Amino acid sequence: MTLMKSWVASANTAGHPFPLNNLPYGVFSTETLDPRCGVAIGDMIFDCRAAEEAGLITLTEAALFDVPFWNEVMEEGPELWAALRARLVEILAEDAPQRAEAQPMLVPQADAQMHLPCLVSEFTDFYAGRHHATNVGTMFRGAENALPPNWLHIPIGYNGRASSVVVSGTDVRRPWGQLKSPDHDRPAFLPCRRFDLELEMGAIVGQPSDGPVTVDEADAMIFGYVLLNDWSARDIQAWEYQPLGPFQAKATATSISPWIVTTAALEPFRVDCPEREVELLDHLKDTGPMLYDIDLAVTLAPEGGLPSEIARTNYREMYYSSAQQLAQHTTSGCPMNPGDLLGSGTISGAHTRQRGSLLELSWGGKEPITLESGETRAFIEDGDTITLHGRCHGDGYAIGFGTCEGKVLPALDDPYAR
Amino acid sequence: MTLMKSWVASANTAGHPFPLNNLPYGVFSTETLDPRCGVAIGDMIFDCRAAEEAGLITLTEAALFDVPFWNEVMEEGPELWAALRARLVEILAEDAPQRAEAQPMLVPQADAQMHLPCLVSEFTDFYAGRHHATNVGTMFRGAENALPPNWLHIPIGYNGRASSVVVSGTDVRRPWGQLKSPDHDRPAFLPCRRFDLELEMGAIVGQPSDGPVTVDEADAMIFGYVLLNDWSARDIQAWEYQPLGPFQAKATATSISPWIVTTAALEPFRVDCPEREVELLDHLKDTGPMLYDIDLAVTLAPEGGLPSEIARTNYREMYYSSAQQLAQHTTSGCPMNPGDLLGSGTISGAHTRQRGSLLELSWGGKEPITLESGETRAFIEDGDTITLHGRCHGDGYAIGFGTCEGKVLPALDDPYAR
Repeated sequence: MTLMKSWVASANTAGHPFPLNNLPYGVFSTETLDPRCGVAIGDMIFDCRAAEEAGLITLTEAALFDVPFWNEVMEEGPELWAALRARLVEILAEDAPQRAEAQPMLVPQADAQMHLPCLVSEFTDFYAGRHHATNVGTMFRGAENALPPNWLHIPIGYNGRASSVVVSGTDVRRPWGQLKSPDHDRPAFLPCRRFDLELEMGAIVGQPSDGPVTVDEADAMIFGYVLLNDWSARDIQAWEYQPLGPFQAKATATSISPWIVTTAALEPFRVDCPEREVELLDHLKDTGPMLYDIDLAVTLAPEGGLPSEIARTNYREMYYSSAQQLAQHTTSGCPMNPGDLLGSGTISGAHTRQRGSLLELSWGGKEPITLESGETRAFIEDGDTITLHGRCHGDGYAIGFGTCEGKVLPALDDPYAR
Repeated sequence: MTLMKSWVASANTAGHPFPLNNLPYGVFSTETLDPRCGVAIGDMIFDCRAAEEAGLITLTEAALFDVPFWNEVMEEGPELWAALRARLVEILAEDAPQRAEAQPMLVPQADAQMHLPCLVSEFTDFYAGRHHATNVGTMFRGAENALPPNWLHIPIGYNGRASSVVVSGTDVRRPWGQLKSPDHDRPAFLPCRRFDLELEMGAIVGQPSDGPVTVDEADAMIFGYVLLNDWSARDIQAWEYQPLGPFQAKATATSISPWIVTTAALEPFRVDCPEREVELLDHLKDTGPMLYDIDLAVTLAPEGGLPSEIARTNYREMYYSSAQQLAQHTTSGCPMNPGDLLGSGTISGAHTRQRGSLLELSWGGKEPITLESGETRAFIEDGDTITLHGRCHGDGYAIGFGTCEGKVLPALDDPYAR
C-alpha cells in the first residue's frame, strides 16, 4: 500500500502522521464546539457529528455521533467499522465530490482540545514484554529467577483502575503513599520518590464477549490501539504488591494518546510474535501475525528545557499479542465489553536504550541516565514532561499515533488539605 | 432503638429481616413491571418509581427513579440519603396518612425478580480479615511467615472485574483455566478442580473522591453494604497469581445480595476494629467504631439436597473497616466513583467452623468437611448451591441482608463451542 491522497493538503505531506491511510478516531472540542467525535486528517479534524447531522454519514438508523465517545461505533461491530472507514475515505479522498460540503466540517487540530476517545469500561494491564520482565525480574530476584514460572505459558496481567485513565496532556500529580525504606523498620506515608513511566500500547476492545474466545476471535474484537503510559510509583509498589499485585502504585494515572488508530489502518504492519521458547497451549497458540511493526520512542523534557530521547523500541518486541492477552482474559468466562482497555505491558528491546521505563533505564536508580542538557535522571523529577511517540513506516507514508504526553507536578504539601 | 412499626404487617413479625428499621434498596421487576428501584418492607417491595411518579416522593427537581439502578440517588449525597430514608419511614410507618395511596405501590417479593441494585463502576477486593490471611498464609508460606510484612500496616487489595459482578440467584458456571498440577512439568487447560466461595461484605461507595480522603470522610462516602461471594478458582489462582495477583481465578463471577442495607440502618450496630498489634499510620488510624456487628453464615446445599451450615462468623472479625480500605484506595489520588464496590476480604473467625472459605474449612482440601447428609466437601461440586446469610440483632428487631446465593453449574464440555 502506498500513500492515499486527500484533498486536505497537509495529509499528503511526506511522513505526516495522519494521511488518508490512517484516519484515527478521537474526541475533540473547541471554543465553539462541545466535545464530539472526529477523525484526524492531516493537520485537521473532520467533525463526524457535523457530517452525520448534515447527512454525509448515514450508516445506521440511530445516530452514531450524538455522544462524545466512540463506544457506540464500537458496539455496532466490524461491519460498521469497515463501512464507516470506507465512507470517510470516500469523503476525504483527493477527488471526492463531497469536498465542498465537507470542507466546513474541518477544524484545525491547533484549535482543538482533545478528550478521552472513549468511555473506558475497565482497564487491564499486562506484563507481556519479555525484555521488560527479564530486566525487572533480574533486578528483584536475580538473573536465574528473572521470569516467573508461568511467564512463558500465559500473558500475566492485573486489573487496573479505569477511573484513573486520562487523556494525553493531562498533568499528573506526584502521589503520596505508604512506603518503607530498606533502612527503616516501619513504613511511612510520604510523597513517592521513585516515580516512573511505562511505555506501552493500549488495545481498545470494541466488541463484547460472553464466554471464552479464541485468539482469532479476540483479534477481531479489537477496535484499535493507542499509546499508553502507565505511570508507576516504584517505592509504593515495592511495599504493597505482595501478594496481591500492584494497587495504589498504579492508580494515580494512566495516560493514553487521544487518537485511536484502527486495526484497519494498522493492517499492513502486522508482524509475527517472536519464536516460542516453550510451545503455547492451544487456547493461546499463534494463528497468524498479530503484533504490529510500530516504532516507539520516549522523550523527557525537564521544566523549561528541551526534550531528550531516552528510549526507542518497537511494539514487535512483545512476546504476547493483544489478541492473546484478550483471549486469556476470557478463559474464566470473564465478560469483556466495548471500551475495555488492555495495556500491553512495558515494551523494552534487548539493548540498554531500548528500555521502556526509567526503572530499567537507570537499573533501579543505580545508573542514572544523562539527558542532552547534561542533567541526569534516575526517576522522574517534578516538572518533567514525558512524551511517548509511535509511528509505522509504510511505503511512502506513515501511520502516526500522535503523542501521549504528561507533565509531573510536585506532590501536594498536605494531601488531605481541601 | 427498638422495632419501628409499619402498616405493612409482615414487617412487624418478630425477627423479620426487613422491618421499617431496615428499608434496604434494590432493583426489581415483575411480569408486568420493568426493572425499577424499590425498598424492601416485610415481605413486600415498595415501588419507588411508582411513588415518585405519583408525587409521593418529591425530593429533587429531576427524577431519581426513572432509571433501574440506585446510582442517581447515591450521586445526590448524604443529605438526600437522609431525606429519602425519612420520607420512606413517613410513608410506611404504622399510622401513615399515605397508607391508602401507597398500598397499591407494594409488590410481593415472591412475585419479583431481583436485579443488580446499582451499576457497578469498578470492583476492588481486599484481604483484610486477619484470621483468613493467617490461615491462607500458614497453608502457603508456613505459620512463621503467615502474614505478609505489609499486612498489619495497610489493608492490601487488588482491583477485580466489575463486569463479572452478578446478582444473587445467578447460576455460576465452573470455569476452565490454565493450571499446573504439582506433579506435572507443564500447565494444562482444564476445568477448575478447586472451585471455592469467599464470604465477604461488599461496601457500596456512594460519593466520588478527587484526591486522598481521610478515614472519616471515607466512612461518610459509603452508601451501604451487601453480602458478597467472591467465587475463586484456587488451582487457577495458584498458577497465575505471582507476581501480579489474582486475575482469571477471580473473574468468573462475584455474587452480591440484591438489597443494599444502608449505613443509616446499620448505625446502631457499629463496633470498634480489633486492637492494633502495631500502630497504624495517621492516614489509616481508627477514629471511631467503623465495623458492624453482623452475624454471617454460609450454607451449602448439594443438588436436590438440603442446605448444611458450613460456616458462621461475624463481620466484626475484620481487621480493617471498609472506611479504612476506601481511605487507602484514595492515597494515590485514585478517583473513586458512586457504584464502586469494595469487597471486605474473606471473613473468618478464630475457630474452625468460623472460616469463610472451603480452602480454609478443608485446610487446602486435606480435611474435607462433612455435610448433614453425610456427604463430604473439600471444594464446591457441580450442582452445589452456596448461600450467604447476614443479620444484625437489634433490641426486639433484626436488620437482615436477605441472602446471596449461587448454584454452580458443570463446566462446559468445550468452552470454545458456540
